[in-house]
Amino acid sequence: MAALDFEKTGGLIPAIAQDAATGEVLMMAYMNQAAWEQTLESGVAVYYSRSRQKLWKKGETSGHVQHVKEIRVDCDRDTVLLKVEQIGGAACHKGYKSCFYRTVEHNEFNIVETRVFDPENVYK
Amino acid sequence: MAALDFEKTGGLIPAIAQDAATGEVLMMAYMNQAAWEQTLESGVAVYYSRSRQKLWKKGETSGHVQHVKEIRVDCDRDTVLLKVEQIGGAACHKGYKSCFYRTVEHNEFNIVETRVFDPENVYK
Repeated sequence: MAALDFEKTGGLIPAIAQDAATGEVLMMAYMNQAAWEQTLESGVAVYYSRSRQKLWKKGETSGHVQHVKEIRVDCDRDTVLLKVEQIGGAACHKGYKSCFYRTVEHNEFNIVETRVFDPENVYK
Repeated sequence: MAALDFEKTGGLIPAIAQDAATGEVLMMAYMNQAAWEQTLESGVAVYYSRSRQKLWKKGETSGHVQHVKEIRVDCDRDTVLLKVEQIGGAACHKGYKSCFYRTVEHNEFNIVETRVFDPENVYK
């Protein structure tokens, strides 16, 4: 039985989504037990939204779902890594492929990626 | 000023370490404000150990430090991605290059990576 350790972190574990083809890290979100089970059953990434306090099927509004190609678990069984195919080409609600579209250099944030979509056209 | 949002998550933010050359996700740990500042100043990854409740310079025991090549911050400023050169070739205290050395398939964990070192020879 592949049990994750949800207890250590109060019921939520970090889940990293990585582009299965390119290795680019797309985003980091959280899963509770139900999100984890729905991800396993459905084959698309389901997270738990801390702000909305409910299950969050990634892409349910934008259509930008994540097809899970492979799942990895870390040594402590308290973090998962999803290798995904990102539908729509962008994981970030700001319109970038990756949520990590900014570098930190000399104490400043710099945008180093190009927008894939305009959020105002997707979230209406 | 490149300020991260440490408040939202009670003082600790997730930090993902990724191999700068290959894109492999190596590990996920946490940083507090002091760990973040020491990482920026020193150029090697410094985390906050939740179990030991103190700053943790990665590799201080094993010698397997992480030289930070690039830092990314996510859209919410509450997660960072470190692109690193992993000295010693292995980030995981279990002796694997990545902590994510197991897949989850059919409700089972399967080791799919090869050990780089024997932990018993490194942590004496």
